[in-house]
Amino acid sequence: MTSADTVTTLQRIANLLRIDSIEATQASNSGHPTSCSSMAEIVSVLFFDVMHYDPKDPRNPAADRFVLSKGHCAPILYAAWAQAGAFPVADLKNLRKIDSDLEGHPTPRLNFIDVATGSLGQGLGFASGMAYAGKYFDKSDYRVYCVLGDGECSEGSVWESFAFASFYKLDNLCAIIDINRLGQSDPTPLQHDLETYRKRVDAFGWHPIIVNGQDVSQLLAAFKEASETKDKPTCILAKTFKGSGLKGIENELDWHGKPLGDKADELVANLRKLVNEESLVRPAIKKIVAKVPEIKKDKEIKLSTPPNYDGKKEIATRLAHGTALEKLGKACEYVIALDGDTKNSTYSIKFHDAFPKRFVECYIAEQNMVQVAIGIATRQRYTAFVHTFAAFLLRAADQIRMGAISFTRVKYVGSHAGVSIGEDGPSQMALEDFAFFRTVPHIVCFYPSDAVSAERAVELAANYDGAVYIRTSRPNFPILYKNDEVFQIGKAKIIVESSNDVCTIVGGGVTLHEAVKASEKLKAQGKAIRVIDAFTVKPIDRETILKSANATHNRIIVVEDHYLEGGLGEAVMAALADQADIKIIHLAVQEVARSGKSAELLSKYGIDAEHIVNAVEKLL
Amino acid sequence: MTSADTVTTLQRIANLLRIDSIEATQASNSGHPTSCSSMAEIVSVLFFDVMHYDPKDPRNPAADRFVLSKGHCAPILYAAWAQAGAFPVADLKNLRKIDSDLEGHPTPRLNFIDVATGSLGQGLGFASGMAYAGKYFDKSDYRVYCVLGDGECSEGSVWESFAFASFYKLDNLCAIIDINRLGQSDPTPLQHDLETYRKRVDAFGWHPIIVNGQDVSQLLAAFKEASETKDKPTCILAKTFKGSGLKGIENELDWHGKPLGDKADELVANLRKLVNEESLVRPAIKKIVAKVPEIKKDKEIKLSTPPNYDGKKEIATRLAHGTALEKLGKACEYVIALDGDTKNSTYSIKFHDAFPKRFVECYIAEQNMVQVAIGIATRQRYTAFVHTFAAFLLRAADQIRMGAISFTRVKYVGSHAGVSIGEDGPSQMALEDFAFFRTVPHIVCFYPSDAVSAERAVELAANYDGAVYIRTSRPNFPILYKNDEVFQIGKAKIIVESSNDVCTIVGGGVTLHEAVKASEKLKAQGKAIRVIDAFTVKPIDRETILKSANATHNRIIVVEDHYLEGGLGEAVMAALADQADIKIIHLAVQEVARSGKSAELLSKYGIDAEHIVNAVEKLL
Repeated sequence: MTSADTVTTLQRIANLLRIDSIEATQASNSGHPTSCSSMAEIVSVLFFDVMHYDPKDPRNPAADRFVLSKGHCAPILYAAWAQAGAFPVADLKNLRKIDSDLEGHPTPRLNFIDVATGSLGQGLGFASGMAYAGKYFDKSDYRVYCVLGDGECSEGSVWESFAFASFYKLDNLCAIIDINRLGQSDPTPLQHDLETYRKRVDAFGWHPIIVNGQDVSQLLAAFKEASETKDKPTCILAKTFKGSGLKGIENELDWHGKPLGDKADELVANLRKLVNEESLVRPAIKKIVAKVPEIKKDKEIKLSTPPNYDGKKEIATRLAHGTALEKLGKACEYVIALDGDTKNSTYSIKFHDAFPKRFVECYIAEQNMVQVAIGIATRQRYTAFVHTFAAFLLRAADQIRMGAISFTRVKYVGSHAGVSIGEDGPSQMALEDFAFFRTVPHIVCFYPSDAVSAERAVELAANYDGAVYIRTSRPNFPILYKNDEVFQIGKAKIIVESSNDVCTIVGGGVTLHEAVKASEKLKAQGKAIRVIDAFTVKPIDRETILKSANATHNRIIVVEDHYLEGGLGEAVMAALADQADIKIIHLAVQEVARSGKSAELLSKYGIDAEHIVNAVEKLL
Repeated sequence: MTSADTVTTLQRIANLLRIDSIEATQASNSGHPTSCSSMAEIVSVLFFDVMHYDPKDPRNPAADRFVLSKGHCAPILYAAWAQAGAFPVADLKNLRKIDSDLEGHPTPRLNFIDVATGSLGQGLGFASGMAYAGKYFDKSDYRVYCVLGDGECSEGSVWESFAFASFYKLDNLCAIIDINRLGQSDPTPLQHDLETYRKRVDAFGWHPIIVNGQDVSQLLAAFKEASETKDKPTCILAKTFKGSGLKGIENELDWHGKPLGDKADELVANLRKLVNEESLVRPAIKKIVAKVPEIKKDKEIKLSTPPNYDGKKEIATRLAHGTALEKLGKACEYVIALDGDTKNSTYSIKFHDAFPKRFVECYIAEQNMVQVAIGIATRQRYTAFVHTFAAFLLRAADQIRMGAISFTRVKYVGSHAGVSIGEDGPSQMALEDFAFFRTVPHIVCFYPSDAVSAERAVELAANYDGAVYIRTSRPNFPILYKNDEVFQIGKAKIIVESSNDVCTIVGGGVTLHEAVKASEKLKAQGKAIRVIDAFTVKPIDRETILKSANATHNRIIVVEDHYLEGGLGEAVMAALADQADIKIIHLAVQEVARSGKSAELLSKYGIDAEHIVNAVEKLL
């Protein structure tokens, strides 16, 4: 096929993809055909000339990757895969139906989607993670492509990713911005000011190429230039028109997210003439040429050595986490870690120092850090642990939400939770972390209370087939468990018990130690209480807690270093909601905290041993 | 005083501020003296030459504003205010003590702080909001200054704010980046590459000025240039050294966030020689010259006209919200609205169309949007309503968290909550919004279920002295209430009742209507149930729910279009946790949802009328 033929064919395919997008959104009576149309040539060129992949084996680890950051253009992405042979073209009309995986925005329910998109501004970070893994972990030649909308370039997360990708010289990454000028409710801030885009992308260390995004030849040349650009990622700035090729709609506002209705038939008929499908010979998809190392993992990743504490020295769970992560790193070369310039606080520095090549410093950009981790963890090759203060993980709440829709297996580790951090004050204290993380479907939320259980939490996390949150603490805690204690997800531990306990206290982290202190004070008064270490806040160990409650006059006090809402307390309440007869008292932080010493704050906010003692006395 | 004298004096004050920062952090044995030192000259020049303010009336609405985005440098900010006469210098040694408001990071508990900082990358957005209010609402000449750290410039939120401020030509805004090269655990990505900073800031539409940030003369000239620069904001790129002026510590890694310990005495002694405090004559603080219009508000803001529905047409609560907001706008000129390019979906467009000058289009940058709203709402002049899809409010979760620490009164409005949105799929569905928003101390979370209550929720929100979250829904709902129905915060409504109800259903939004349908189906079978509209999820109406439970065999079913965790269900459980005898069944979404028709999804995830009927039957 001559080059001119290629251009003509790709242009015809672009129009074919436009038709598919219109017809699918007509069938679903919802969706974004005009946003699809502006990127038709980009998708045609990528899928039918540039990318090396196998439509019958979309997750082949050596294949080039594609991320559609502007997820609302799912119809044209589905059309490209269908036209490439991944599934029957006729299925496209099942778009957005409840029994179809062709959802309104792409999710990895489809085997050709690695990451869910649809919350804007996240795709480039996912792609950066894939490119980082390709260049530094897989050391492979596959390339990563990401199409962004222009509207989503207002999202700061995009610029975090631009900075990250150039800092790490990800020349295997190519972003394409579909600059179609129009957002949902207004023109975008920069409209067609391509020069300002060029300046921004250049200043952030990328190689910018301006093209007419509706011109197949220019796109082909740009992708070639991108593949030849070394030491920096390339960004193709494609000037396009929303609704391109759709007469009367092209470049008009108020056509965002709407099917074409009664205009569709005529517009499709016009496009069909341009496609002339009967005579269209689709080019062969480029074969996969890159090689990737095979992943050889043991079925179970184990700590290289078991916990080893003499029980005399108090240890922070954040430190024990670092120790365990380093041990996991020794045991399995596919464990990797990320941090956002807090590694000397979260103790991921222990992993960094032991395995510098498997550590990704993401600087103070938590959104991109989480996106990169989700990207690295795709295709189930690497087990990624993400670190920062628990409070700052919330900066990436929407990314973690989208990670759930991607069914990611990323492990989130948040340190410095609760008022117990002390003097730094409320901006540094996570008091809502469990409320948020508990909402992630299928996640496990660990809350280890000593160094032994912290190490085992990290080990269990690595092996869990899903996302995990581990809450670690700043202060040093006494050791509670023997080095050979066995922990399980969803299994609490009874720390203090007797045959005549008057009530059950459920705690975690610092409050568990306060509960133990309270039990000692009460014992001196002749009162016995049961103390339970929840260990996992989700799933919560309903059985142990219920049995303990029944054995202790159906009285429970939950005490936690977290706001009242959504944490351990409500987890216990939810587990026992269907039980009549059980009374639950809840001690938790109820106002904006302030600076002070850890013990002073525990007292001020009513979650220390003294307050537990008072609560028990009041309950009796 | 000659110019040379000014320079010498300001340099001496800079060293005095260094001393104060060291001594305060010595006293607290924690804090960030080295990060303070790099910005000593910047603070000295701003507080003792550039800014117009009154240390005895820090919240004077005509005063220049100062935001310390790098909140960990609180000690030098406190020192500046103390040396300017706001409070006794001796108090600085109470830094971080539990009974002092001089917290580890600044909060508005102090009357000279407008916004809490300490989660990095947020200050510039707050400052942009203040500058927007100054230029467009107050139409005043006061200026806004914001000092950022270099490390926090990795945060995307910073670049959202850079884009916003130049788009709106905020020439009354001046940012200063303290480029001291060193982060917490590593050098920053750009270290002292000032030229790249310049390119980035320039590309984002600001006027960049590179200075030696330790040079008072250069700083004075730069601030003058900033004040003379029209139609664009200015960014002073100050090359500094962490620990500047501290021999043996300056420009060294591993001194982040540490007091100087036994090095302090000698370093302070050296600095004292440079200050020669006995002979130091502090310059007079520049008097306030700007004028601001006086705010004349009625004590209560009322809808300009009451709700007016004929009860025949179904109306979406998002639309009713837009209607009510427009009415509030008519009633009170200090109500303003913001949206992130979703105004035609959230219906804030109704306010936009009626009051274009009081509407701030923030484009797809939710973090900055929330920051701008918090900035606009400072000093209690304007009542700001922020809009986007509820799912995307989560993008600004950390900003909303910091807003709570700022005691902001911003009203957050999230539309398109829950699976009931239908075909767009899970990325667009908020199913964790209440779990997060409920953790905000003192917030009110509204969940209106029809147009009448939605309008009243908006009115109540405007008058509530604190932050508010309003969850609105996409589908149209029947009207439930008469136009003159009276609503209160924390007061539920009983929608369906009889004297022989077998259980109580608590719902909100779409599930309330499903519960009403269920009650009709059950009635046909001869079973009566009570149906309650929670109206506010926080505070939840414990009294009404408890009374209803007691009247209906202590049986409650909570059904909600939200994940199981942290929403209406757990709010009800928490309210009744101390009650033995009550059994609660909870119907909610338990997995990652998918695309489909609204009714199909309600059925699939077990929260429609049929599932409520089944739950009632199972309960009996």
